[in-house]
Amino acid sequence: MPDTPPRTVFFISDGTGITAETLGHSLLAQFPEANCRQVRIPFVDDLDKAIDCASQVREAARQDGVRPIVFSTLVNPETVAGLRQADALFIDLFEQFIGPLETELGQRSTHAVGRFHGIADSNGYMARIEAINFAMAHDDGISSDGELAEADVILVGVSRSGKTPTSLYLAVQFGVKAANYPLIPEDFERNKLPGELHRYRSKLFGLTIAPERLAQIRQERRPDSRYASLENCRYEIDAAQKLMRRENIRWLESTAKSIEEISATILQAVRLNKPGY
Amino acid sequence: MPDTPPRTVFFISDGTGITAETLGHSLLAQFPEANCRQVRIPFVDDLDKAIDCASQVREAARQDGVRPIVFSTLVNPETVAGLRQADALFIDLFEQFIGPLETELGQRSTHAVGRFHGIADSNGYMARIEAINFAMAHDDGISSDGELAEADVILVGVSRSGKTPTSLYLAVQFGVKAANYPLIPEDFERNKLPGELHRYRSKLFGLTIAPERLAQIRQERRPDSRYASLENCRYEIDAAQKLMRRENIRWLESTAKSIEEISATILQAVRLNKPGY
Repeated sequence: MPDTPPRTVFFISDGTGITAETLGHSLLAQFPEANCRQVRIPFVDDLDKAIDCASQVREAARQDGVRPIVFSTLVNPETVAGLRQADALFIDLFEQFIGPLETELGQRSTHAVGRFHGIADSNGYMARIEAINFAMAHDDGISSDGELAEADVILVGVSRSGKTPTSLYLAVQFGVKAANYPLIPEDFERNKLPGELHRYRSKLFGLTIAPERLAQIRQERRPDSRYASLENCRYEIDAAQKLMRRENIRWLESTAKSIEEISATILQAVRLNKPGY
Repeated sequence: MPDTPPRTVFFISDGTGITAETLGHSLLAQFPEANCRQVRIPFVDDLDKAIDCASQVREAARQDGVRPIVFSTLVNPETVAGLRQADALFIDLFEQFIGPLETELGQRSTHAVGRFHGIADSNGYMARIEAINFAMAHDDGISSDGELAEADVILVGVSRSGKTPTSLYLAVQFGVKAANYPLIPEDFERNKLPGELHRYRSKLFGLTIAPERLAQIRQERRPDSRYASLENCRYEIDAAQKLMRRENIRWLESTAKSIEEISATILQAVRLNKPGY
């Protein structure tokens, strides 16, 4: 454990706090030794709430014996001033960057609070909800005839290679309609893609994984089964890779990759330039 | 449509590009009139790729007749210099904020690329994957005896009130284990919470929605059904609210709210201070 004293980090926003937290986590990931206690305070949309935040910041400073770090995305100048009554290192997305953007775009910013993550009625938002429902309805090979035509991408791979979490991440973060389809021993014996997949070749993307890691994951689900044995995992992975190679399916090794990395790689590979949220 | 000329906005990162894009979208949401074409370029982790990005930035400037805006989270100074060979408004997360953080923390940053969204083997990451699997396995009332004990939160509400997308968002973004349970006409007739929900009262959170909006959503799924009729939607919403009030369940109106807002509200209400990703 790091032996630096603990320090409180606040993520304070007039909206959900998700942008402030993403910003903060990205920056703090550069300081793995830092010993931080994290507090998210969303919906700080008036002066009273800002002054209450300032009290919490002061209280944390008193407890830690060191001033907190505050990542904020407050838009309203009065609210900002209320928060700044406390002493902290303030890292403020809007303060730094809105000015240069106004100059560049030749427009004033709207200074509207809670804009980015609060738009529930836009087309983009509805598409994301639809993509989430699509991923749920087309998980693990559940697809009726012709339904896959609607998919933006179809993930294939052996059981527990990471298809389901990746499909859902693609839907939630990018509004991408991702179906997924398992490759099972019967497919290897027939040496053919299952179901209707051959009709959607340009949408297919494969996930593979190190057999040792796969065995470990499967072991948690079905301890000491043939399904989880290293020998069987080696066989399935090898057969899946042969099948994908023969069918000319792009794939990646998911073993040490996060769902964010897998998703970004897939979007690049299938040339889907969907906006992220 | 805005009649400003189109302008290209790049999100450039040595990792997934998700932080750069979140940052950029939050800022651009303050300029709803801006007419932007967005391009994400992830995994720019060496000088050659950075120089290729610079060419793309120059090409966009030529086509648009105006210089692009580049949101970047590049860590390596050599890569940054390669990208900066092009002319653009650069909005760089690390350049602005790493310095003040180094001073405050009394530590040098690691300057490691792709840190934040690339950590696939941490405990936090595994907990998120587990939460996604949990949400999938406990969607729409699918829960065996005792399984809900594992849930961090259990969403309740009538069919199509937003429970499923919210459960998945809570899992993907916050690693929160969210189950969801529909309230159906039989529950209203018996005037009782379904299944074992009464055992987990402190974890329950309700979603409600305007009957007009609910009818519209259901109409898309089952056109002209009794299920989708405004009269039935009014009855179900009214009965669900009565039940939740009687059972002392906190709830919110999801009609005009995004899954981000609903999720942030729920975490605040049930006092779950889980870190977001």
